[in-house]
This record gives sequence, structure tokens and C-alpha cells, in this order.
Amino acid sequence: MVRASLRQIVSPTNSLVKVYRRALAKGTTREGWLAVEGPFLVKEALAAPAVRTHGVLMTEGGRAKFAGLLERLPAEAEAVQIPDRLFEQVAQTQNPQGLAALVELPNYNLDTLLASHNLLLLVACGLQDPGNLGTLLRSAAAFGASALCTLPETVSPFSPKAVRSSAGAVFHLPVLHDLPVRDLVHRLRAARVRIIAADRHSPSTLHEADLRGSLAIMVGREASGLPPEIAREASLVLGIPIRPGMDSVNAATAGSVFLYEAARQRGFKY
Amino acid sequence: MVRASLRQIVSPTNSLVKVYRRALAKGTTREGWLAVEGPFLVKEALAAPAVRTHGVLMTEGGRAKFAGLLERLPAEAEAVQIPDRLFEQVAQTQNPQGLAALVELPNYNLDTLLASHNLLLLVACGLQDPGNLGTLLRSAAAFGASALCTLPETVSPFSPKAVRSSAGAVFHLPVLHDLPVRDLVHRLRAARVRIIAADRHSPSTLHEADLRGSLAIMVGREASGLPPEIAREASLVLGIPIRPGMDSVNAATAGSVFLYEAARQRGFKY
Repeated sequence: MVRASLRQIVSPTNSLVKVYRRALAKGTTREGWLAVEGPFLVKEALAAPAVRTHGVLMTEGGRAKFAGLLERLPAEAEAVQIPDRLFEQVAQTQNPQGLAALVELPNYNLDTLLASHNLLLLVACGLQDPGNLGTLLRSAAAFGASALCTLPETVSPFSPKAVRSSAGAVFHLPVLHDLPVRDLVHRLRAARVRIIAADRHSPSTLHEADLRGSLAIMVGREASGLPPEIAREASLVLGIPIRPGMDSVNAATAGSVFLYEAARQRGFKY
Repeated sequence: MVRASLRQIVSPTNSLVKVYRRALAKGTTREGWLAVEGPFLVKEALAAPAVRTHGVLMTEGGRAKFAGLLERLPAEAEAVQIPDRLFEQVAQTQNPQGLAALVELPNYNLDTLLASHNLLLLVACGLQDPGNLGTLLRSAAAFGASALCTLPETVSPFSPKAVRSSAGAVFHLPVLHDLPVRDLVHRLRAARVRIIAADRHSPSTLHEADLRGSLAIMVGREASGLPPEIAREASLVLGIPIRPGMDSVNAATAGSVFLYEAARQRGFKY
């Protein structure tokens, strides 16, 4: 559909402008839709088949620059143009180039996921840094993980910084946020998915373990590690062998190295 | 040496206070000494044999909390106490706990490094994000790299954010910043150090290559990749096999995966 005209809004108190402002600051709308800004993320969202675009917000300059993007919008999406000065108040990043969007991710179902063969789950257990979580999400998508799950007390993978750090991977990989620990462990066991706990103090190392078959890799916070109820339930507790005297690697790095090693052992068959 | 008293300074215009203020904002003093704050980094610096501490700055609370630290100070280091309110103006991070220090890293020599066997260099070529560079530095230390080198137009590994992200690795691993490209390439070749270029578009993959022996792994920016004069001189150009449709992993993640794979092939002999 080619749009000849966009709905024009100039008032900062317009309710839709308020929705964008709140959502771009927080990451999501009340309905749970993701708010993203800048051409990279908006284009990634539009290109992801599973993602539904509900609306775009543009300045006049953004509209001129990204005209082709309007043609790819679904018919029901609302396209709105606002003045530059208002956009600057609504946007959160330094260079959004007059473009933002509200998009809806699919509702992923854990049972459906657990039914698949050769499952590779990455479970973030309490990570606090949104940049780290987004980086991990990006690695999970790149190394063929089936999904990223997060446990309670983990930063939201839908926060603006996590979404930016994911470099669009959040639109391509199933993400299941804030799963109850016991229920997840119970269902993983029922589905015969091995629980692999990453623990830098473990004498067993990841490259000597068999990381093929269905498994869930649990990565904790750097400071506190994994919650005891996870460590207790693990089939394997594995460390990354690092130079003596060095303490650890970054949590996103550790998770990425586990994912790489699993992908390597699986022959990089994605 | 146990210090009964610290030099007390209350004036915000005191020249030493000004030195700390500038250095904590920028990362280094005019002499090239590193300025660090918070107990984690200060303790890491004091524990590193190669690092020389020139001074510590404390509040009354910091002094009470970290009294043991004063005993580990070298005799020539200057210990200064300033009021809380002044410390807050000087410090840059949220929770420095009334503690900062000026420390001097050794001057590392590339020729000495190049003379060692089984050299593993990580060369950051143009990375712009200090968090990424610090994370990479931390991985390089953890995975047994001999040193981290940076090329011109790479963010400083001594910037406050890079130092924080390195989690103290900057005190343990030789770092050679801002090396001229041609000279480095020339000296690597003369020392028979293989140049391994990381390039996500390469059909040759890192796990199929031999990453033993002396080598320098070159990691570029995510957006632009490696400078042509590096790519041209590489013995091998290698990619990390990622899921089709996914673009890449984070630059620090890519470098860390290369270092992990090299360490794995070398039998994690650090």
C-alpha cells in the first residue's frame, strides 16, 4: 500500500504522542508492544516475518529519507508525522533520524518450544545489565539457539538498551521473559532437556562435555552466579578454562562462548 | 608502612584535587598515569605487581572502610583525605565508596613481546565503544593473550569506561595503544607472527583453521570491518559461522570467540 498522506499531529499532549513518548523511554507499551527508534531497528522489525507493526512515527525529514519504508507497512498500521521539535522530545537516542515504530512480537509458547528436537535454550538468570542481556540475545540468535529465556530478577530483554544491544535479534529469536524458576526446571526435566549450569568455579570444562542434544544453558550474574535451585538441578556444571589469576569473563561473553562451543560441537548446523 | 595520618585537603582549587578531578574524568593524567575509583579497581591495581601506585584519595568513610589498603601502599605514594562533598565533585561513578587512586602501568615494549614464543596478540582495529574494548581486554587476559594492541582511531583502552569494563584486566595484561598500522604489520611479519583477520563475510571459518603458534588476531569495527591494509596483509581471513539471516555478533563477542577458539586449540595452556 502506498500512502499519499500521513496523519499529522502537532500537539505534544496528543494521546498517541504520549504513548510513543512513554514507550520509547520504557521500551514497551501497556499492551506489551515494543517501541523502537532509528532506521536500523525499525527496518529490522519490518523485515522480520513474525513481527507485526502497529504504527510508525516520522518527522518530515524521516518521511523523505525512509519513504520506501511506508510502502512496506501493513494496511492497518497507523503512520503519523510530527514536527521535528516534538520528535526530539519523544525520542530517547541521539540520532533516531526522525523515525520510530510500535511493533508487536509473537507470543511464544514454552511447550511448543520444548517439543522441538535438539533444543538449545539460553537461560539468563538474574543478569542486571541490559547491554549484556542484549548482547547475549544477539549471540543466541547468531549461534542458532532456539530461544532466550529469562528468570525473575533479570533485566527486561525489551528495555530500550537491551533491544539496541541485540541489534535487532529480538525480532528474530523467540524470547520468553520472566519465567518462574521451579516451573521452568520442572518442564525442562519433563521434556528431557538437560540443564547445563555455567559456573566459573567448576573444574569440569565446557569443551570436554558433550553439548549436543537438547539442552538449556543457564548463565548467571557475574557477582553472584546462579541461583542455588538452578545449580542443584543441573545435569552438568561447567566452567570456561581461563588463565589462573584471572577472575572471570563478562557474563555476555561467557554465555556467548558456551553458545559458540555448543554450535561448534553441533557442526554449526543451524 | 602504616600511616598514622593522611594529608588533609579541603580546598576544591587545590592542585592535587584538580589533577584527580581531570584524570578521573578523562582516565589518565598528563604523565599517562591511570586514575581509577572504587574499591574493586583500586584493590586490583594495588594487587598487580607490575603496577605502581602514586597516590590514593579518600574520604573519612573510605579511610575507615579501607584502612588495610593504606598499609599496602608504597612509601612514596601520597595518601590524601578530602571531605565527602569534595569527593563527590571529583568522582565520576555512582558508588566509588570514597576511594580513588593514581597508578602507573609499565611501559610495554613491542619488540620484547614479539620475541616470545607462541605469541597470541589481540589487535583492536578501530573499535569505538569503550565498553566493548574493555570487555575484549578482559577476555584477552582470561584466554591467555600475550597483549592487547590497538590501532589508531580505536577508543582508548585507558578511558574510564574501558578500564571499568576490563574489570581490572588492564592491570594484568600488557596493553599497547595506538600503534601505527604499517609499522605493526611490518614487525609482525619480521617476527613471523601470522596475521589472522576476523571477517564475518569470510567463507573460511575459525574452527577449521590452525590457531596454534604465534599469531595476531585482528578484530575490526562492526560497521566497517578491518582496514584494507590489514585485510590485505593477513595470512588467513576467518569468519565465525553464524546462523544464515543473522548479520553478526557484537565486536567484543567476536574477538572473545576467536580468543576462546585459539585457547582451546592450544589446550588452554596458559
